[in-house]
Parts: sequence; C-alpha cells; structure tokens
Amino acid sequence: MSKSVFGNLFTVTTWGESHGKGIGAVVDGCPAGLPLSAEDIQKYLDRRRPGQSRYTTARKEGDQVEILSGVFEGMTTGTPISLLVPNLDQRSRDYGNIAYSYRPGHADYTFDQKYGFRDYRGGGRSSGRETIGRVAAGAIASKILKELGIVFCTYTKSIGPVTIETMDVDEIPNNPFYMPDAQAAKKAGEYLEKCMANHDSAGGIIECRINGVPAGLGDPVFGKLDAVLAQAVMSIGAVKAVEIGEGIRAASLNGSTDNDGFIVKNGEVIKTSNHAGGIMGGISDGSEIVLRAAVKPTSSISQPQQTITQTKENISLLVKGRHDPVIVPRAVVVVESMCALTLVDALFSNMSARMEHIRSFYKK
Amino acid sequence: MSKSVFGNLFTVTTWGESHGKGIGAVVDGCPAGLPLSAEDIQKYLDRRRPGQSRYTTARKEGDQVEILSGVFEGMTTGTPISLLVPNLDQRSRDYGNIAYSYRPGHADYTFDQKYGFRDYRGGGRSSGRETIGRVAAGAIASKILKELGIVFCTYTKSIGPVTIETMDVDEIPNNPFYMPDAQAAKKAGEYLEKCMANHDSAGGIIECRINGVPAGLGDPVFGKLDAVLAQAVMSIGAVKAVEIGEGIRAASLNGSTDNDGFIVKNGEVIKTSNHAGGIMGGISDGSEIVLRAAVKPTSSISQPQQTITQTKENISLLVKGRHDPVIVPRAVVVVESMCALTLVDALFSNMSARMEHIRSFYKK
Amino acid sequence: MSKSVFGNLFTVTTWGESHGKGIGAVVDGCPAGLPLSAEDIQKYLDRRRPGQSRYTTARKEGDQVEILSGVFEGMTTGTPISLLVPNLDQRSRDYGNIAYSYRPGHADYTFDQKYGFRDYRGGGRSSGRETIGRVAAGAIASKILKELGIVFCTYTKSIGPVTIETMDVDEIPNNPFYMPDAQAAKKAGEYLEKCMANHDSAGGIIECRINGVPAGLGDPVFGKLDAVLAQAVMSIGAVKAVEIGEGIRAASLNGSTDNDGFIVKNGEVIKTSNHAGGIMGGISDGSEIVLRAAVKPTSSISQPQQTITQTKENISLLVKGRHDPVIVPRAVVVVESMCALTLVDALFSNMSARMEHIRSFYKK
Amino acid sequence: MSKSVFGNLFTVTTWGESHGKGIGAVVDGCPAGLPLSAEDIQKYLDRRRPGQSRYTTARKEGDQVEILSGVFEGMTTGTPISLLVPNLDQRSRDYGNIAYSYRPGHADYTFDQKYGFRDYRGGGRSSGRETIGRVAAGAIASKILKELGIVFCTYTKSIGPVTIETMDVDEIPNNPFYMPDAQAAKKAGEYLEKCMANHDSAGGIIECRINGVPAGLGDPVFGKLDAVLAQAVMSIGAVKAVEIGEGIRAASLNGSTDNDGFIVKNGEVIKTSNHAGGIMGGISDGSEIVLRAAVKPTSSISQPQQTITQTKENISLLVKGRHDPVIVPRAVVVVESMCALTLVDALFSNMSARMEHIRSFYKK
Repeated sequence: MSKSVFGNLFTVTTWGESHGKGIGAVVDGCPAGLPLSAEDIQKYLDRRRPGQSRYTTARKEGDQVEILSGVFEGMTTGTPISLLVPNLDQRSRDYGNIAYSYRPGHADYTFDQKYGFRDYRGGGRSSGRETIGRVAAGAIASKILKELGIVFCTYTKSIGPVTIETMDVDEIPNNPFYMPDAQAAKKAGEYLEKCMANHDSAGGIIECRINGVPAGLGDPVFGKLDAVLAQAVMSIGAVKAVEIGEGIRAASLNGSTDNDGFIVKNGEVIKTSNHAGGIMGGISDGSEIVLRAAVKPTSSISQPQQTITQTKENISLLVKGRHDPVIVPRAVVVVESMCALTLVDALFSNMSARMEHIRSFYKK
Repeated sequence: MSKSVFGNLFTVTTWGESHGKGIGAVVDGCPAGLPLSAEDIQKYLDRRRPGQSRYTTARKEGDQVEILSGVFEGMTTGTPISLLVPNLDQRSRDYGNIAYSYRPGHADYTFDQKYGFRDYRGGGRSSGRETIGRVAAGAIASKILKELGIVFCTYTKSIGPVTIETMDVDEIPNNPFYMPDAQAAKKAGEYLEKCMANHDSAGGIIECRINGVPAGLGDPVFGKLDAVLAQAVMSIGAVKAVEIGEGIRAASLNGSTDNDGFIVKNGEVIKTSNHAGGIMGGISDGSEIVLRAAVKPTSSISQPQQTITQTKENISLLVKGRHDPVIVPRAVVVVESMCALTLVDALFSNMSARMEHIRSFYKK
Repeated sequence: MSKSVFGNLFTVTTWGESHGKGIGAVVDGCPAGLPLSAEDIQKYLDRRRPGQSRYTTARKEGDQVEILSGVFEGMTTGTPISLLVPNLDQRSRDYGNIAYSYRPGHADYTFDQKYGFRDYRGGGRSSGRETIGRVAAGAIASKILKELGIVFCTYTKSIGPVTIETMDVDEIPNNPFYMPDAQAAKKAGEYLEKCMANHDSAGGIIECRINGVPAGLGDPVFGKLDAVLAQAVMSIGAVKAVEIGEGIRAASLNGSTDNDGFIVKNGEVIKTSNHAGGIMGGISDGSEIVLRAAVKPTSSISQPQQTITQTKENISLLVKGRHDPVIVPRAVVVVESMCALTLVDALFSNMSARMEHIRSFYKK
Repeated sequence: MSKSVFGNLFTVTTWGESHGKGIGAVVDGCPAGLPLSAEDIQKYLDRRRPGQSRYTTARKEGDQVEILSGVFEGMTTGTPISLLVPNLDQRSRDYGNIAYSYRPGHADYTFDQKYGFRDYRGGGRSSGRETIGRVAAGAIASKILKELGIVFCTYTKSIGPVTIETMDVDEIPNNPFYMPDAQAAKKAGEYLEKCMANHDSAGGIIECRINGVPAGLGDPVFGKLDAVLAQAVMSIGAVKAVEIGEGIRAASLNGSTDNDGFIVKNGEVIKTSNHAGGIMGGISDGSEIVLRAAVKPTSSISQPQQTITQTKENISLLVKGRHDPVIVPRAVVVVESMCALTLVDALFSNMSARMEHIRSFYKK
C-alpha cells in the first residue's frame, strides 16, 4: 500500500515538496452527492496559514486551493477529487550550507540515509507544508462529519510551561494560539517573547474533542479507532506522543478511579465519567472522544548548533530565515484534519458490521 | 484491508476468542530460509503466561503453540505460517450477569453497540488472550531481527506511582514485574498488595528500547516509523498513550534543549543526544529507538460498580473470579512483539527505496 | 498487503500445504448476525472432493471443516472466522525423484527459483488442495449472497473438444462433470477414457452465471468489478484465461452488434442483449453476470516427460500415482467461490457510494 | 484501499475526467535515484495520442505532461511523483441528449445507478482519457524495467476478423495499427474503411510479450503474477478477456501437449516450449511472458441505437461527433503500461522473499 495514502474506504493520497511546483492531495472514496466548493476547503487551509501573528513565520504562503476533478455542478461525483495548492515561492536561491549539512531536529539526515540524496529546498517533502494536503482533505472529511452531526473542538492546551486553566470555547479563535483561556494565551505570548529573545522555540500540546460520534466505530483488533487515530496523529511531523482520554495519567490510576460506570437516565445510556476518552476496546462508545498530541518545539532556531556536513565534517550551523517560534497553533487544524479523516473512514467501514444492516440496505 | 491484519510485506492476521477453540495467527511474507521451531515461539509466549507470581491471575493457561504450515524441514518456506494455541478451558459454565450486563472498563458495551450481540465468555475477542496471536507472530519477527543484529530491551518503567530510578538490565527477569530496578520492584509489590487488599487494580508504563536499527527505516508521510509504531502499540487492549523519545515532555522543552546535534567521531556519525528517540521525520536515524506505552489499570476489580444491563436496567455489578491486579508485566512482551512486527515490515519495505539497490539486487 | 489475503472489507486469508497439518482460512469482515454452521461450509467443500467418479483421483480426502472462532450460539459475531480442514494423509513417504526434479507444468521450478527451496510433498503450497481455503470462505460469502437474492449457476462448458450444446440447469448435478447437457457429458466421458488410455489429461472451460446482482457494484478504475473478478479467478491454479460476457469474441464484433440497448418495459429497465456480461465501465448493470475461465489440462500425466533436476541434470520423469485426468469438474465450485468472495466485498464497498445513503444509515 | 490506486510497493493513484481541468497520476514508491524527465513520459503519452491517422479520432488532445513533485535535479527523490496533463478542451457546450440518456456500450447507466448522477461531459471519469494517468505512470515503470533489462514488445494481433500472420517487429511502428505484419495492416485498413462507411466500429486483440523478466516474480496465492496482470489489464475500459500463454486454447490441449519440458543446455535452463506464457504457479519462470487482451469495438457509433433516458423514456439515440472507429491501436501502450506497473511492483515485493537476501542487504 502506498505510504502516501491514508485510509481504507475514504482515502487521501498526498504529494508535494516545500519549494516544488505545489502541494496536492487526491481524495478517493468520497461519496457522490456532497456539495463541495473550493471555499469549503479554503476555510480550513486559512486556519494553518502563516503570517497571522508575530508568533508565526512572516513568510507569505497564499495557499489557494483548486479542485481539479471529482466535482461536477457543485457536487462530488464519487470519483477521485484532486486538490492542488500551487507553491508561489519557487524561485531559485542560494540554500548555502543547508544543502550540504544536516539541520538538528530536522529530517535532513534521515532522508539522506534512506534515499541517498534529498530535495533540500525548504525541507522538501519533510517540510511542514506537506500538511497542506492533509488539511485540504480533512476539510472534505469534516464537511461529511458535520452533515452527520459530528463536530470538533480542537485547541491548544499548552505552550511550553503554560497550560490552560479554564475552558471558554468562544475564546479559541480570539487569540493567536487558539487557546480556550484568554489568561493562558496572554502568558503564552509572554513566554514566546522570551523564547524569541533567546533565539529559541517552544512546543505544546493540542487537544481534540469530538462530539456526536455514534457508538460502534472502530474495527478490532488492529483497526481499533484509537490505534488508527494514533497513527493518523503521530504521522504529523512534530508530534512525539498521542494520548486518548486519561492518556498517560491512566497508568497511575486504579481500576476503581479509571473505570467509567454506566447509568440509564430517561432511557438514555450515559457514562458516569469519561476517563476512556470515548473509546473502549477500540470502539467508540458514543461519548466525547478526547485525544491529545504533544508537539515538539520548532527545530529551526537562530542560534549556532553542532552538526555535520554530508561529507562528515563537524560544523557549527546557524539556520537563517524567519521561522515560527512555535508551530502548535498552526498544527491545531492539522490534528483535527487527521482525526476527521480517520472518523469518516471508520464510519464507512462500520456500515457493513451487521447482517441486519446489509439486508435492509439492499432491500432498498 | 482486513482489520485483523497488521503489516504490509511481513503481515500477521490474528483470530480467536478467550473461551473459543483457540487463538491463532497467520504470518505471511516471512522470507524463506529462516530456521524456525515451535520452541522459538514458545519462549515468547511463556513471557506473557499468567500464574507466574501472586500478582498475576492464577488461571492455568498452558498456551502451547503449534506450527500448522509454512515450515518444512525446520525452515520457513516463504508461504503462510499458521500458528495455533488451543484454548484448554472451553467448558460451559454459568456466566451469570456478565452475559447480560456491561462491565465498566471493558469492551462489552461497545461490542454490543457495534455488532448487536457478543461472545460474552471471558470477554470474547476483546479478552487479553487475543494478544497471544501478536506474541506468537512477534516471536518470528524478533528472530529475523536478531539475525540482523537488532535487539530489544523492554521492561516496566512504572507501576502505579512507583517509577524505576536505576537501570539494571540484568535485574529485569529477576522480579515479577520485569523492572530493571530491584528497589522499585519491591515498592511496586508493596503497592500492589495494598491495591489487592482494597479489591482494586493498578496500571503502569512499559518502555521499549531497540538497538541496532539501521538508519533509513520508515516511509513518509503516513507510513512514518513512529506513526506505524503508534498504531501497533495503541492497538493493544489497555494502552492509552504512546510516546516516542521525550514524548509528552518534548512539548515543554525548547528547540535548543530538544534538538539532537550530530558529531563525527572516528568516522562514525553520532548524535550528541537522543531526545528524538531514534526517529526523525518518521525515519530511523540509527540511534536507539525509545518508545513508551501507558497501560491503564486492570478493568476487572472485585468491588461493586455502577453499570447497566443489556435491557437498560441500572445495577451494581461485582465481577467475580481471580484477575491480575496489574497486567503491565505480562504486556511487556506484547509491546515488544508489536514493535518487532513493525520493524520487520519497515526493513522489507526499505529494500526498494533506492534505484542503486534495486539494480544491484537484480544483477545477482 | 499480504498476498495470501483476498478482499478489502470482506476478506479471506488462506494458508496450508498439501501434506502439512491442514489447510485453513481466516475470514474477516463477515458481518455479525449471519447464521453459520460447519454444515453450511461442508456442502461446498463436498463439491470439490475427489473420489466422486472414475474421472477424479481416487485419493481419500475427507476434508471435514471445523470452525475455530467467530461464531457464537450459531451466529457470526463480526470477529474473524477461523476455518480448519486437517490433512488426514500426513505420513512420511518416499517422494523419490519428485523431491529433486521439476515436474513439467507444475510450480516446482518457479518455487525453487523464488524461495531457494520448497516443500515438495504433494506440491506443497502450490497443490490444488490450497483451494480448500477458498471454497470454505466462499461458502460463507455465498450464504450472505443467497440472503440478498444473489444466486449462482456454475458449470462446465467444455472438456477438451467437447462443448455443451444445450442448457439444462437440472442436469448439472447429474453427471460427474457438472455439465448442463447430458449428451455432452456422455461425450466428455468418452473423450476422457481416451485420454486415460493414452496416459494423458484434459482441460476445459467453466462458466459462471450470477443472477440477482444489484446494479452499482464495482469501483472504478482499478477496483472495477470485472478487474477484481479477473484477479480472483486467474489466481486459481490452472486458470489461463478469464472472459466477461462475449469475452474474446467481442474483439471480432462491431459496435452495432456488441452494444447492448436499453428499453423500459412496465417501468423496468431491461437490456435488449447482454454482450457485456452484466458489467459496464466496471460496474454491474443489474443483468446477469457471465464469466468464463479456461482451465489447462492436469499437469501430472503418467508418461515420461523431459525435465531437469535441481542440480541441472537432464532426465526423463514419469510422475507416479493416481491423478485426476481432468480437474475442471472439481474447479467449478472454486471459480464460484472466488466470484462469491468478490461480490460480497463489492456489495460492502458500495454501501458508502452515495452521501444520501450515509445520511440515512446514520440517522437510524 | 483506494480503488483508484494500483500496486502495493510501487503504486499509482489516478484521477481526472474527460472534460474536467486535467488528468493526473501520483506515483508513490518510486525508488530514489532514477533519472527522470517529462520527455521520458511524453514519449509514452504520444503513443496513445489521437489524430495520428484517419482511423483515430481527429480530436486535438495535446496531452503534455508536467511533473509537479518527486523529482529534483533530474532524479527521482523517493517521494510521490505527481503528474499532470491539463485538459485543453474544457469549454462549456451543449451536450444535448447525452446528458439525459444512456449511450449503449458506455458506462452512463451504471455510473448513474451507483452514484445517483454523473459528470456526463465526454464520458467523465469513464472516458478513455482516464488511461492517460496509467500511461504516464507506466512510462516511469518502463524506465525502471529497461534499466534492469526487461523489455516489451506490444502490438495489435488482430482487428475485427483480420489477424496477423507474420511477426516483423520492425514493422510495428510503420503502420497506424501497430501491427507486426504489413499485409495484415493493409487488410485491417480496408476492413475499417468498410466499418466507417457503415457508421460502425471494430475491436481487436492486443498481445504483449515481455523479455528479460527474472524467474521468481509473483506472490502466491492471491498475488500471483498472472492474477495481478489479469486485474491490471481487465481494469482497462474496453477489455473483455485476458489470456496468459496459450490462454483459452489451453482448455482444449492435453497435458502432453500443454506441459513445457525443461532442458539444460550449456549450463542454462531452457524450457522446451512456452505454452505457459512464462508464468507457472503464479511465479515467473524466466522465459518470455505472453499476455493477450481482447478489446471490444468502440461503443460510440454514428447510427441510431435503442436506449432510454434518465426519466425512463424509450428513445432512439444517435451519438454525434467524431470517434475512433477502433481504439485497439491506441490501447496498445495502455496494456503495456499496466503490465509494466505490475512487473515493477512484483520486482520490489520479491526482494524480501529469501532470508539470505535480507541478510546480505542489511550487511551493506
């Protein structure tokens, strides 16, 4: 299976390098009859666009998406949807020692080890620009989910040592960090100013809460919903950990404090708690899905670092250019997109789980 | 793709329920010419066998593996290897209210929601016995890796609040918790005694360190080595979080403290640190791979819990029988097995990454 | 993806060698709630059993199937169904020069070329016994199809030069060749007597007609229904050609004679002909699906043949033992099984083809 | 798995409709270090371009390919190669009754049945233009094969009733039908003149011969080389049958006349005949691979045909416009491309078939 394809029934294939002709995605298995326009997708791309505050790179990345196939008279046709975001900045330039040395924290060294050489312009395929394809496809997935009443609330939970203390959903789009806590956002800004003054960078934690997910999604044993979500989110460049529900904290709880009880109220099944984060035995239980991703600090920093060249010389490297002091805010929509892609695939796969459903479907 | 299959080139398909006729695995894509006997596999199965200490269930699970196909005259033939572990305990019994109510923390409710009914005997497919198939297949993967000089060191890092403080590899098999710290193991035992007295259970953290992995394994972007490892490990029943390298801690570091530098010493490339845990941009960098899995506390506890029946009645349920107060020690070999399966698949996939390698292979 | 797995949503993994411990199949993605017993499967296996006439090998192959998992209280549970057919005849014997030389028409040479050595006992994995796993899985697929009103009529169209001239469905089980023409069956018997007298073997053509298939199955472009059927059927050992509808004859027709017109009669859409064999643009059109498979003559013949040994000596080889003078009749149910597996997979995949269907499914 | 993706290790994803913005393909798993330019691909696209003779449509289809990613400094980088062929003719026009009625022989009806509506412009996704993506990807596969000494000889074996009688490889590019027999080509032209005068169309047979294929390619049992070739070729629009070696004729041979013997001459293993067409037991045997595809006559003919509208009215439809009276010559390179894609994938998969090869690979 192509390692640039994600999903089984609703799939996305991505391609493209940072300074090549463009970034793209091919979405296959999208059902026919979904109203879809470039604007639907553009809204999501705009959430990851740089240059929105002094805490993201000032690079101009227009990132306008074009739909090349799979949509006719405003509706998806069931055939592959090809999405293209041309790279505006393709001019030749002097990449200097970047071309011949390995930036710490980046994939320069490992790409060379695997492939023998690499497209060194702006990180090539390992650039954060690669996530454009994910977000473009995720926008389509999100539109399907919305029609089914499945909605996301994704935000920055922490930046460096600053963690949110309140949960005000309306505040999320009001600050440059997508934090649901204005006070924490203020502190995060102050922390980042210090990082920038030190020519340093920060990481953080993104939390994704998904409501309206029907019980029953996920396919034991290797296709468990949490397993696929983990792959989806860990495949994002800077993510170093994925948690579901209590996550790591579960390891220090007891059965009596971690188990979620059930009660029936007015005929509705309700869990008395949600330590599991909405997934039990790899299958959604109908309650809120809660996932967290830990994002490492931006690798490119404007201070000298010890590294080596392709020809195995020891050097001190200073990565020039303007870089995001933190990529967490821009990665919020990327995490959400990967979760959306995972959920749509699980929804489709689940349709053939019961013989009674198949019988009634084909009696239509 | 079958959700009971893991891998792309070296694959395992697992099947079986807790109280059915047996548990099995079919390994396909195993290269011809690997010496293989049932004993090679039995050694790994014995590491997850219960009844080894007072901290694991006293149930007798003989778990003897039989090789049904794919091996001829002591060597693998390149055809599918079918592995069978018969269930010894299949007698009919009274499952009482377990059959009609949902145990908190278990997958009873979600299986019913997905499939409409379930095999309630001992948890059916969602039982921990399902991991027998993973370990049996992982044993074959581990044998391949060993031939290539890739070796594992997997152990319990913490149980409940007790975390290891020293790292003594020789100590790992000496205590019932597979902890590399005798002192911590003693404390963990004391902690578990308290849990058991309280009719409660505990969780913990498993750490897996892999040495000898060549640089270059992993396939961007969705087949990144860390992404596939995350899926592999999160697909294990009780795992709620997966970390690579610094993991969650990376979120609070700075670029200057998280980036790993490079130096050349005596012609060898060495990283000045390994915060990345051996994987950069989704590709192994040749240094030690470090992964952690957070395991939740055992769900079955001998105290009354609030839950509901299939017919939506509120009840208080007390799960009878002897259960592991902690499953972490027995899950150590399961985590290792899933990592081994992932690595062998990545090794095979990597063989066609460069045109020069393909040319030289087919000139043979 | 494992090359021993077929299908995407409804999948089968097969394993086993001719003289190993058994032959098996793991069916995954079977919906929960299908009534299933070993007898349901045994009926299909009995159709491929040898020893039913003087035109099939007299070898005793009991071929009793056992269900090891995935069925509880007579119903499928949605989890993997493991099927086992133990090999009765596993005793050691002298394989003589078969072990060291390459039988013409068999896969001995190519297995050695690929894997370096092979299980030479009875053809190992390349034996016709491998199809037991396909038929066992196909029986489950057929049971699902039957519930949806999809039925097969599969028969022998020709043996050697003898082709059917009439189409009497009731005659099919009445003769040892599964031919729908008693007269042709008689001639086929006479032809085979001559072959046997000459120590020679024959081939033939199998035709599979499928009725009740809803329009809309098949996924362009590489997952076209005819493309997947072709893979399914060509993967059967001795098949050398696959035709859909007019098949090869279409090449010599004209557009005016090959195109199928449409008419509406009493509100029903009917095709004025079915040269297409029920599939247009890779999607079923609701009319009868017609597929043919050409089966080569049995490779094992009791006359000396020119061949070589593993050590590259030229020899004359006479393959001893009793062999089917023709395998076509026993392959009828194998072709049907592969078509059944393909159709169930296509049915499930098709459930998410339209947004309107997804909306109504998840409103339940 | 996406149904618009073909292959497992070397994969192609295609997208695009006849009158949309373009046709494209994403090739993933192409090894790094292959020299590649747009010209390499253009040569193959030119072989399927229309307007080359009076026997192909006069429509102008420039079909210039652009490489959007995956190539750096003239070499493949190992990352996805995105190929784009813009559609020149996208202007809006009056599609008349084509939009609302079902052309006989086309996929109009089945697409509507599956998806509920369709892009009716020029056949949309089911247009022959879809094969542009296959040929563009096939050109890359062919370049890899050529480096390994694997070469194709693909040609038209028959058009309507006219079959080649001689085999003159040099003649193939000399006539508009890619026939290796000048005399037959002349007769085919005469036959087509008659078809055109009758407002009718013709079909034919394409034969593909592949030399230099090493023994050992193909993965039993469902990934057999002939099975995958059959899927690959049957997935091409108008193909209705696929044959390997003797193909259908094998059904009427005897074991003694169909089996290929082996001899050793000067240390080389040679088959005494090649009835098997280079594949035994689903694995290549090192001799010439021979495959044939039967192509049905062009569906669009300029004579009235009986059909229905979307609203189920009976009508007589006359498809206007200029259409190829035969598509066989243009499909020659499409068949070759699908075979090339299949072979590269099989070559890569085969690299991990033996433990000895893995050991020596990773000792490098």
